[in-house]
Amino acid sequence: MTVEGVRELIEEFEAEAARDRDSEETPEVGIVMGSDSDLDTMYGAYEALSELGFAEVTDLEDPPEARFTFETYVVSAHRTPKLMDAYASTASDRGLDVIIAGAGGKSADLPNMTASLAYPVPVIGVPVQEKSVSSVIGMPTGAPLTAVDAGKSFNAALSAVQILAREHEELRNRLVEYHEGLQGEVAAVSRDLHESGTPGFRAQRDQ
Amino acid sequence: MTVEGVRELIEEFEAEAARDRDSEETPEVGIVMGSDSDLDTMYGAYEALSELGFAEVTDLEDPPEARFTFETYVVSAHRTPKLMDAYASTASDRGLDVIIAGAGGKSADLPNMTASLAYPVPVIGVPVQEKSVSSVIGMPTGAPLTAVDAGKSFNAALSAVQILAREHEELRNRLVEYHEGLQGEVAAVSRDLHESGTPGFRAQRDQ
Amino acid sequence: MTVEGVRELIEEFEAEAARDRDSEETPEVGIVMGSDSDLDTMYGAYEALSELGFAEVTDLEDPPEARFTFETYVVSAHRTPKLMDAYASTASDRGLDVIIAGAGGKSADLPNMTASLAYPVPVIGVPVQEKSVSSVIGMPTGAPLTAVDAGKSFNAALSAVQILAREHEELRNRLVEYHEGLQGEVAAVSRDLHESGTPGFRAQRDQ
Amino acid sequence: MTVEGVRELIEEFEAEAARDRDSEETPEVGIVMGSDSDLDTMYGAYEALSELGFAEVTDLEDPPEARFTFETYVVSAHRTPKLMDAYASTASDRGLDVIIAGAGGKSADLPNMTASLAYPVPVIGVPVQEKSVSSVIGMPTGAPLTAVDAGKSFNAALSAVQILAREHEELRNRLVEYHEGLQGEVAAVSRDLHESGTPGFRAQRDQ
Amino acid sequence: MTVEGVRELIEEFEAEAARDRDSEETPEVGIVMGSDSDLDTMYGAYEALSELGFAEVTDLEDPPEARFTFETYVVSAHRTPKLMDAYASTASDRGLDVIIAGAGGKSADLPNMTASLAYPVPVIGVPVQEKSVSSVIGMPTGAPLTAVDAGKSFNAALSAVQILAREHEELRNRLVEYHEGLQGEVAAVSRDLHESGTPGFRAQRDQ
Amino acid sequence: MTVEGVRELIEEFEAEAARDRDSEETPEVGIVMGSDSDLDTMYGAYEALSELGFAEVTDLEDPPEARFTFETYVVSAHRTPKLMDAYASTASDRGLDVIIAGAGGKSADLPNMTASLAYPVPVIGVPVQEKSVSSVIGMPTGAPLTAVDAGKSFNAALSAVQILAREHEELRNRLVEYHEGLQGEVAAVSRDLHESGTPGFRAQRDQ
Amino acid sequence: MTVEGVRELIEEFEAEAARDRDSEETPEVGIVMGSDSDLDTMYGAYEALSELGFAEVTDLEDPPEARFTFETYVVSAHRTPKLMDAYASTASDRGLDVIIAGAGGKSADLPNMTASLAYPVPVIGVPVQEKSVSSVIGMPTGAPLTAVDAGKSFNAALSAVQILAREHEELRNRLVEYHEGLQGEVAAVSRDLHESGTPGFRAQRDQ
Amino acid sequence: MTVEGVRELIEEFEAEAARDRDSEETPEVGIVMGSDSDLDTMYGAYEALSELGFAEVTDLEDPPEARFTFETYVVSAHRTPKLMDAYASTASDRGLDVIIAGAGGKSADLPNMTASLAYPVPVIGVPVQEKSVSSVIGMPTGAPLTAVDAGKSFNAALSAVQILAREHEELRNRLVEYHEGLQGEVAAVSRDLHESGTPGFRAQRDQ
Repeated sequence: MTVEGVRELIEEFEAEAARDRDSEETPEVGIVMGSDSDLDTMYGAYEALSELGFAEVTDLEDPPEARFTFETYVVSAHRTPKLMDAYASTASDRGLDVIIAGAGGKSADLPNMTASLAYPVPVIGVPVQEKSVSSVIGMPTGAPLTAVDAGKSFNAALSAVQILAREHEELRNRLVEYHEGLQGEVAAVSRDLHESGTPGFRAQRDQ
Repeated sequence: MTVEGVRELIEEFEAEAARDRDSEETPEVGIVMGSDSDLDTMYGAYEALSELGFAEVTDLEDPPEARFTFETYVVSAHRTPKLMDAYASTASDRGLDVIIAGAGGKSADLPNMTASLAYPVPVIGVPVQEKSVSSVIGMPTGAPLTAVDAGKSFNAALSAVQILAREHEELRNRLVEYHEGLQGEVAAVSRDLHESGTPGFRAQRDQ
Repeated sequence: MTVEGVRELIEEFEAEAARDRDSEETPEVGIVMGSDSDLDTMYGAYEALSELGFAEVTDLEDPPEARFTFETYVVSAHRTPKLMDAYASTASDRGLDVIIAGAGGKSADLPNMTASLAYPVPVIGVPVQEKSVSSVIGMPTGAPLTAVDAGKSFNAALSAVQILAREHEELRNRLVEYHEGLQGEVAAVSRDLHESGTPGFRAQRDQ
Repeated sequence: MTVEGVRELIEEFEAEAARDRDSEETPEVGIVMGSDSDLDTMYGAYEALSELGFAEVTDLEDPPEARFTFETYVVSAHRTPKLMDAYASTASDRGLDVIIAGAGGKSADLPNMTASLAYPVPVIGVPVQEKSVSSVIGMPTGAPLTAVDAGKSFNAALSAVQILAREHEELRNRLVEYHEGLQGEVAAVSRDLHESGTPGFRAQRDQ
Repeated sequence: MTVEGVRELIEEFEAEAARDRDSEETPEVGIVMGSDSDLDTMYGAYEALSELGFAEVTDLEDPPEARFTFETYVVSAHRTPKLMDAYASTASDRGLDVIIAGAGGKSADLPNMTASLAYPVPVIGVPVQEKSVSSVIGMPTGAPLTAVDAGKSFNAALSAVQILAREHEELRNRLVEYHEGLQGEVAAVSRDLHESGTPGFRAQRDQ
Repeated sequence: MTVEGVRELIEEFEAEAARDRDSEETPEVGIVMGSDSDLDTMYGAYEALSELGFAEVTDLEDPPEARFTFETYVVSAHRTPKLMDAYASTASDRGLDVIIAGAGGKSADLPNMTASLAYPVPVIGVPVQEKSVSSVIGMPTGAPLTAVDAGKSFNAALSAVQILAREHEELRNRLVEYHEGLQGEVAAVSRDLHESGTPGFRAQRDQ
Repeated sequence: MTVEGVRELIEEFEAEAARDRDSEETPEVGIVMGSDSDLDTMYGAYEALSELGFAEVTDLEDPPEARFTFETYVVSAHRTPKLMDAYASTASDRGLDVIIAGAGGKSADLPNMTASLAYPVPVIGVPVQEKSVSSVIGMPTGAPLTAVDAGKSFNAALSAVQILAREHEELRNRLVEYHEGLQGEVAAVSRDLHESGTPGFRAQRDQ
Repeated sequence: MTVEGVRELIEEFEAEAARDRDSEETPEVGIVMGSDSDLDTMYGAYEALSELGFAEVTDLEDPPEARFTFETYVVSAHRTPKLMDAYASTASDRGLDVIIAGAGGKSADLPNMTASLAYPVPVIGVPVQEKSVSSVIGMPTGAPLTAVDAGKSFNAALSAVQILAREHEELRNRLVEYHEGLQGEVAAVSRDLHESGTPGFRAQRDQ
């Protein structure tokens, strides 16, 4: 019952896994989601990776110049289980170092199944909705997956880069730089609120 | 305290049960809901059955030509308990093979009572709201009913057809065909997202 | 990474699917659960099927004499995803008419994945714990599965037999007989409570 | 499919409804519950009514001497829906003034259906378990039922007597007397705790 | 710390309690709510009582002609506890037969405290918001109050009239008549949906 | 309907309020709870106050020698509303500086009503059970009360002393001393766990 | 990794703590929140303090003339933990008597950590969202913090002033006056609703 | 207010951070928990790491011979915030590659604060109780932490090793070997259940 479009993707994953590309050529991070309706929520992962200097691979034969890259796919656990299997089972051989997997609904099985099939590649689950948290996080003993809070794909990407940063001082520095920017913003707004006073600050803000 | 309109419907159900129509003439699937305010949620069952080639019976004396048919009624457990009783108690004799029963609110008793009264005709409960799930699914041991998630009347209809498909190869084929269509859509969107890249895909989509 | 014990089971499922046994020889109902720690909860399905005259197949080459049979396996979605896939993907060809799939925990993916892979064979999900209900029932549109309440494997088996009873008058009769027994018990206890009075009834009961 | 034991009870309810007993001879309060496993929880209603001078009727031909009486039955919404219907539909004609209906589980339909069928006799619902509260209380607009908290059958009986007390000064006095007893106990324990001091009070209590 | 406006109302309640009006002159039903922001939710009680022929008393010296009447007040448990006390403590002497008390928020104490202070006058609690249900219903043993579901002030009024209907055949008849109207509506819509078919019915409705 | 025992306590509260004791003679902290069944949970407040050098007053005519004292009463919002009113309304005049009020159940009204009636004396609410948290904390705007977590009467007492410590350097010092003790314990156990290693630490502990 | 803006604020807090200003010159109340996106919710604290005659300090060298004052800062537990530490650790030495700390999200750690670091200065936690309540209130034994309900920063400020009012009769009077105003409003609206009748009151209101 | 025991630990962390040990000498994984009462839950992390060949460091001057090691400490966010700060702030300089942080209660701040202070060292949060999940997982955008389900410290350790395995083929192999063992167990129990039949399997098990 596997239709042609699905079969082609499966074959491409398997072909890529069979090649022996250098790890610098393959994407470090794989982003998968259960439906393109999850894309707006998963966009945070794109933003965080872009902010930290990663580029998206859309054609493995013509990869971006950036040293660190990621790829993005839609894979449905319940509608295309064989495609999910192929994506996850080939992940290690395709050179992925960490996978960010997002799914919505109450039966958000994609992150869990991806973690089981891609093991021991680490998978960070992103519950796309609040009601997905329980299903994503609840893995039984022996089946590792870590999760971020509902909708926090941005943080999932930061966590993915924290994992990679252990080997790449450059990524560690980018993480620190990003964080210092955040801290500076808090300090600025704190001083501004205190010195303008509550009504003054609100007036400015609402201008 | 049974008013005339209710009494007439009860009599029609009983008259139909007393007739001995050929099973090909009677609807395979019965759809009931607690209120016409549930209709937009229950419309998914109509859509799924229509997609799989079922036609709606509105006049048993003048049935549609389609081989597989269904009927639709409003029956309120709390306002018209006697009508509910008549609908469900006559279901088997009226030729129904499976019932899809939807109800909203916290006391969504219609699917449960229908399952008890129509037994052993299988009943698939559709909680019309999230808060109805618990009441619909919570049947005691010995009183069977299966349920879909809140609002998933479309899936309830697929499940009903899965039940019928055991006898009807034709329905099995329609289910497979429908599913292949779904898979093809996932494959297409997955390839598109991957090859367009995240911003490109979003740009196309939002055009 | 598939170990030998798993590989052997997969091969057996595939070999069985390749054979062309008569449908009377193969089990009608398949029971799967995520772990043998679920067995006490899933035992209700065994009890209900036994009560309705089904026998358990433990060796397909030496099947029980009973007309209706079932089989039982442990299959873990998260620890043995390839085994789960083989079990469910071969279900139709192995002659199963309906599957009862139970899983515990918050990420109770086994019923969902089984439903997706065995499609269009109907799957009845049994949440083994209260916290599994949400994950079992929450399937997205297009991916049908029906569920019973937490722990209600007995009812899942009744529902499975309701599905089979459409073709087998004999099963319909057994269901009715079982139900009449239940009703008789309620009537007896009701009369007893009423006629003994509350303290009298309790005294008898606690003797 | 109605078995003999159920049919007999139904006939007795109908016969009693057809008689025209004086209202002093019939029980004021009817207690029904979905299963005899609910009896320990529903026992509070028995206790409260007994405390307020009501006697339990176990044989209508040989009623207790007490002016105020009640009756107790088991009636299952899901296993014996026709018995439930007969019980509730005849309630008014059998002389009941108020019904206390208890049920457990998530689909605690008995109080709701009883309220619909016995209307306009007031029904007080008792959720036998915490998880039954939502199903008992959630009646739609137009279908009245009032509920007490999970397990509070004692309070349901007090509420039933509050309803009856409007006509019967004697019951009003018993309610007041009962309440004064409660207040006296609080006052005594409050004084004792204060004057003994916390450790002293605990020491006495644990003696 | 009791301000003048509050003191005046308290004095009026006490003066009215001290009078000895005939029960036909005093309102049967008292409606109280914690804030005028609850009025839109509590309006259902007004509607139901009006539908059943009750009139609102706004001036006890110039009561409406209707045989059955009710009164409406705002009383805040947390902002005006002394006013609440006076309202409830005088309820019985002011001739009220039943009180409908609504409150919102998580600490919806008004119905509970009113029930304690007006005892043994029956109080029906209306949780104005979903989050108020738990606080309204959760009375301890010995302190009776019955509740309707969140926002169901309409049903609370029907329940109040069910209580009154025991003495007043006229009210019983109005309740039955109201219910027959409801049933007729269900029957009409059910027939219409069935005979028009789902798309036809929706088309008409959306015209 | 106020019984003698209650009336006597009310009179004693009022008499004490009318006296003009020096603030050093009256208890700083009042502990009230809805039932003596709450005492084991509320015992934490006794422990914390005792640890910080407070003594319990059991006879105002013969107060303890300690500079800082507290009193303990049982007061039920739903069974003895007039006693609760008297306790709280006289609190300020009886010299209480802060009240710790604990109640269990879902309708945990005692802390809320005490806060409203004792205002502006600060009240710290202790939900005696998890299900009491929502009812205790949910006060409307304008009606202040602060709460601790379910069962945390010990913390409520620390918070009460934090309030008093602003005026009494001595109490501030005791709070700091208590806290340093806690910190020392954490440091000791941390060092012990680290240096013994996990199995060694557990072995010691389980000896 | 502490950036300059943060370091400057830390140094200012420490410098201020090292000075020895008279307690009349320093703000009594400190308001902190985790993000300026919390400001609209925390604005209630500003409103309540302003209503009770407090002025906001925006420059310690040029304080407002009002006797009672407060200050406002943004401090993020998760983005600027060192800034939070400095704010809270210096609170006592900077003369703050009570802190109102608000935070949103599920990990609303700011109030908790502030309470631990500012100890024994009392901290009132404000959960900025409903989902923050659990995290704010759940402090372990020995680590005191009291909380108000989600969003109730207005009440937090009233509670803070209740704490201060023990020393300042003037504040006690302002609290009473504020409360009398509230009571007067309830009395006025109650009379108006009663005398206008429900439809009349609504008509006026909606004019 | 930092007591001596705490101060000594802080100094040791700082001294260790100032040294420049080779990364092979320092522990790869740090385990911290909020209280020694969490140790039984956190013991799973010890078990998993031990199973994968890690040894616990109890004395840095006398490290175990194993190539991969971990350390264990108790650090309380609410009772010893300065100790927590020192532990986390020095983590990177002390050579830790990943931290597993567990905490119980509703305000489980330790994992969150550790993640903020140890950044960019990755932190895996372990909610020690179900009620801790929400507080652990709910980090705001920009503050990364990933979490496992309540009590799943075993999985947290597997995830930590997945992170380390990217650099260490040896660890990758151990992970695979561990997983194959798990799979073999599932296959064995599945075959056993199937071939023994349900009652046979249970009989063996219960022997």
